[in-house]
Amino acid sequence: MGVFITFEGIEGSGKSTQAKRLYEYLTNIGIKAYLTREPGGTSIGKKIREILLSHWEENFPSIAELLLYQADRNIHVNNIIKPLLQQDYIVISDRFYDSTTAYQHYARGIDYSIVDYLNKLATEGIKPHITFLLDLPVQEAFKRLNREKDRLESEGLNFHQKVREGFLKIADMEKDRVIVLDGLKSPDEIFNQILNILKERKIL
Amino acid sequence: MGVFITFEGIEGSGKSTQAKRLYEYLTNIGIKAYLTREPGGTSIGKKIREILLSHWEENFPSIAELLLYQADRNIHVNNIIKPLLQQDYIVISDRFYDSTTAYQHYARGIDYSIVDYLNKLATEGIKPHITFLLDLPVQEAFKRLNREKDRLESEGLNFHQKVREGFLKIADMEKDRVIVLDGLKSPDEIFNQILNILKERKIL
Repeated sequence: MGVFITFEGIEGSGKSTQAKRLYEYLTNIGIKAYLTREPGGTSIGKKIREILLSHWEENFPSIAELLLYQADRNIHVNNIIKPLLQQDYIVISDRFYDSTTAYQHYARGIDYSIVDYLNKLATEGIKPHITFLLDLPVQEAFKRLNREKDRLESEGLNFHQKVREGFLKIADMEKDRVIVLDGLKSPDEIFNQILNILKERKIL
Repeated sequence: MGVFITFEGIEGSGKSTQAKRLYEYLTNIGIKAYLTREPGGTSIGKKIREILLSHWEENFPSIAELLLYQADRNIHVNNIIKPLLQQDYIVISDRFYDSTTAYQHYARGIDYSIVDYLNKLATEGIKPHITFLLDLPVQEAFKRLNREKDRLESEGLNFHQKVREGFLKIADMEKDRVIVLDGLKSPDEIFNQILNILKERKIL
């Protein structure tokens, strides 16, 4: 059985950079690793991602958004995560179910019981062994986004503030699994911290 | 408050023909009616429909399929069905949640409790006032399909047999709402039966 590592945080937190860096580090030292993301880690998932991130004229209800993320996740778990863990890979995912809890429960306000029911349904028993949460103020993160904003990035500052706070609440409830990293530190410092934690935990 | 009428049945049962005919009849006599369908009754839903009916190389897990149907439904309910019912329309839908129960529970084998939970989540309290189930043997229905089969139509005869039986079980449990019509009768005979039932129930 392999190891499942997830990276979480708001847009612009640097999580994708760190996920990629860890993947490259592992492959360079000859460890079987796979870098993936949600939404859009599979061919079907890429189509779901397009729907989720496009701007639409019609009303996109929160429940439908939640169901689409979970559909993407269920396809991802069955086609990528589960089979690769069974082949002893270190699977690194840029976002996983903590994002759904932060965005759909804490920011959109959907009942925790609904989000949790669907997280369990979609993941079919798969849980991250360790999760790195890149945390920093929303204003700082947004300064780093120099491209046209997608549907979710276009939500107001207040929305992303709730997402950030949501992630911190999750980390507080699952201290053992979720490691909070200071996203204002330099990428090198953050990466060294990640490596040290993985070594301490005997994952590397 | 308007009236919500749904048509259900296996592919080739004639449900779409009857739904369209009822819509045309109603608009011709000056009644505000709207004809819609699932999946794909909205712009976002059309994209979801494409995903559901395309052939994919990767594994399309049953749970993901269920979640996508429910996402489509939730968008449909919020953008089309609910607002039009509030404007006193007769809304006619070619498929609704009975299809999910028949295909995803009875044919795919997903637990009834999961399908039911998601049907309730996605519909936000909207239920059909009356449902017409066009019933006929699968072999007869399939003779009528003269086009390239989509992903679901490509399932074996045994799958569609389970769907047919599932629909009949639903009708048996909800005798008051679900009217079973003999799909082997002529389209004219079936349509007259539909009109008579709607008149008996004081819907027309």
